[in-house]
Amino acid sequence: MLRRDFNTAMLGALTVPGLTRPARSQGDLRVNADRLMTSLRSLGAIGKTDTGAQRVAYTEADRAARAFTLDLMRAAQLDASVDAAGNLLGRRAGTDPSLPPLLFGSHVDSVPNGGDYDGPVGSLSAIEVARTLAERGLRTRHPLEVVVFQNEEGGLIGSLAMIGALTPAHLDRTSQSGMTIRDGIAAIGGAPEALASAARKAGSIAAYLELHIEQGGTLDAETVQIGVVEGIVGIGWWEVTVEGAANHAGTTPMDRRQDALLSAARFIQEVNRVVRATPGRQVGTVGRIEARPGAPNVIAGVVRLSLELRDLDAATIRRLYGEIDKAAHAIGRADGTTFSFRQTSENIPALSTPEVRDAVRASARSLGLSTKDLPSGAGHDAQDMAKIGPMGMIFIPSVDGISHSPREFSRPEDIANGANVLLHAVLGLDAGI
Amino acid sequence: MLRRDFNTAMLGALTVPGLTRPARSQGDLRVNADRLMTSLRSLGAIGKTDTGAQRVAYTEADRAARAFTLDLMRAAQLDASVDAAGNLLGRRAGTDPSLPPLLFGSHVDSVPNGGDYDGPVGSLSAIEVARTLAERGLRTRHPLEVVVFQNEEGGLIGSLAMIGALTPAHLDRTSQSGMTIRDGIAAIGGAPEALASAARKAGSIAAYLELHIEQGGTLDAETVQIGVVEGIVGIGWWEVTVEGAANHAGTTPMDRRQDALLSAARFIQEVNRVVRATPGRQVGTVGRIEARPGAPNVIAGVVRLSLELRDLDAATIRRLYGEIDKAAHAIGRADGTTFSFRQTSENIPALSTPEVRDAVRASARSLGLSTKDLPSGAGHDAQDMAKIGPMGMIFIPSVDGISHSPREFSRPEDIANGANVLLHAVLGLDAGI
Repeated sequence: MLRRDFNTAMLGALTVPGLTRPARSQGDLRVNADRLMTSLRSLGAIGKTDTGAQRVAYTEADRAARAFTLDLMRAAQLDASVDAAGNLLGRRAGTDPSLPPLLFGSHVDSVPNGGDYDGPVGSLSAIEVARTLAERGLRTRHPLEVVVFQNEEGGLIGSLAMIGALTPAHLDRTSQSGMTIRDGIAAIGGAPEALASAARKAGSIAAYLELHIEQGGTLDAETVQIGVVEGIVGIGWWEVTVEGAANHAGTTPMDRRQDALLSAARFIQEVNRVVRATPGRQVGTVGRIEARPGAPNVIAGVVRLSLELRDLDAATIRRLYGEIDKAAHAIGRADGTTFSFRQTSENIPALSTPEVRDAVRASARSLGLSTKDLPSGAGHDAQDMAKIGPMGMIFIPSVDGISHSPREFSRPEDIANGANVLLHAVLGLDAGI
Repeated sequence: MLRRDFNTAMLGALTVPGLTRPARSQGDLRVNADRLMTSLRSLGAIGKTDTGAQRVAYTEADRAARAFTLDLMRAAQLDASVDAAGNLLGRRAGTDPSLPPLLFGSHVDSVPNGGDYDGPVGSLSAIEVARTLAERGLRTRHPLEVVVFQNEEGGLIGSLAMIGALTPAHLDRTSQSGMTIRDGIAAIGGAPEALASAARKAGSIAAYLELHIEQGGTLDAETVQIGVVEGIVGIGWWEVTVEGAANHAGTTPMDRRQDALLSAARFIQEVNRVVRATPGRQVGTVGRIEARPGAPNVIAGVVRLSLELRDLDAATIRRLYGEIDKAAHAIGRADGTTFSFRQTSENIPALSTPEVRDAVRASARSLGLSTKDLPSGAGHDAQDMAKIGPMGMIFIPSVDGISHSPREFSRPEDIANGANVLLHAVLGLDAGI
């Protein structure tokens, strides 16, 4: 049923050629917040278990959530389809066929044991925005495209495909569903052999806008209603290996040890010190550690750690890494151990576009909502979309900053605020870009 | 064949009633060092693989090594038998039947991927000492018993049985051979249902003396020939749990974290600082660490570590633990994390007996060998034997302090020195106690 060309033939039936009221001047326009919450609750019930939401991409629950979302697109009078990458698209024609489309949306898949808000809030709000416009008979200049990316949580797969960056190596990878990405795409109605048809060229979109829960606790702690996202931070990952000498913990005096775990402990502290030594929102984390041989009565000979650095500015990440690398080698010299680093992943920062940020800020102001500019510490499909056009994101508060958990929660009034900011930002971009 | 009463009937045939030359005044007496090295090489060939010695207790290689050792006892004119616990005993009558026996020996089992010296040096030297006495027709006042304990490496099993401390829980435990200790004892000719017959009462032995490689690098580094062991250190083991809050490493600012791994890193450094803050030979080690959830992009919520403290003085271990516990709670208060400790094991220190130390020191001096008093950081059967009588140990250098490894090595001249010190210490104790 979820054929990618499913509704293409119905385009004529869904558009209402007679309506050309300009949409820009609808200052009192609001989404139907009750309907949006009802939709969110219905979607949240799909794949819900005692340990949280289980809408992991390509599983039965994910497919059921996608079918529900497609139905909702149709109810919003969108021209609903599935592209070759398995992304859900809901199109609404604009008044000027020469203009590129304005894209907005998010995702509906979840992590294992996830929550009801990360992804669904942005996806269903986008559909609600389109439905509100359709109900009022408001027509934008640009074509609108609501996009619900597939498998965001498994590595931004849908948006990578949309910017033409999904490689055969990605397709061969086994996803958390147990299926390869390739088989997963086929299972959700995509066409893994025809991915090129889903790819968009740079410059082919007017803008991409995404509403999302913050996932951090800044807006909640500071009781700010709307976050204007400055960009999505860059992320560097390194595997750090500390080599000492495994030895008998009973017979090796303290001053004759080359204890790799002691050096690793000093390293963890140095990472924290270096990252916090200068003002800014950069973060640095050691979250994984393994000590070998790992016995209480043997001095550790080898320790492997993860190092992660994030910041909006790639130069800051480089500088922090340089200082950490220097500190590590100083520890090694003092302790008779050696440190080596191997970079395992690098995502460069994706800054949002000033004009899109302005549209979000103006929209929130017109609604009387407080705003704060802040980076997104988490990754989003928006970072891929930034490579082909102007990009922006709207954050709403996430209570206690919890996400990827059944305890993830955003208040209905914040969700309504987010959807209305999205609505007016779309209208503002449509008028301004 | 290895029945525990195997050679009891042969006692008369092996003793030579006519010989009563007193043994004490044999200052120029020496063991046959070449024969000892030949025996060590033969034993070392049993169970030898590319990755080291595999004489793990109860395995085929262990049983072959024991059969070889029993044969060697018989060649030394010892009354060889296997007790109900599976220990090998080689008796030689003394001239005064009212005196308790003088015990000396070690073990022949190895760790997996072990070496040729840890255990065999003391066991085969003890037999060589008895053989030397037999060849010279020298008779001690005390009965002599060469003892080769079973399964030393798996938890001092044979000596625990000899002091009556082997429990049903020990017997049910699966040993590294895959067999339970109970089945292992039966497999090596013991009688697990009659262990009480192998137990000795406190005061029933004149002394226990054990020659062993140092396993640490002190004698080798300081080019001392003989170590006079002050005692076997006490060992405390704790499981330490650090609880923080798992959170998103990208969206949680540095000043809002409760990072259990950062607290654990500070703890590891504090253990090192506290243990080294006062002079002494105490050691403290964190060798095992586990961080949960253990992902590069998640702040660790829970970390579990091992803590091990060793010293000859139980009060020192208690004091160090107290300071470490205090330091941990200070870290917890500063970091918003909590520390909890659970003691998982406690071996109290076993001090050697001053008279036995004197006998070892006098023996070495008479042979012109340099000595150093030092603790044993590793555990030995001697620590159990200290509970039923006077105890002492003789260490010889272990090159680079390596043990439990195929690279474990002690020089032939050091082995000969050790055997001769054992010989004259036995004669000294026989004369003096």
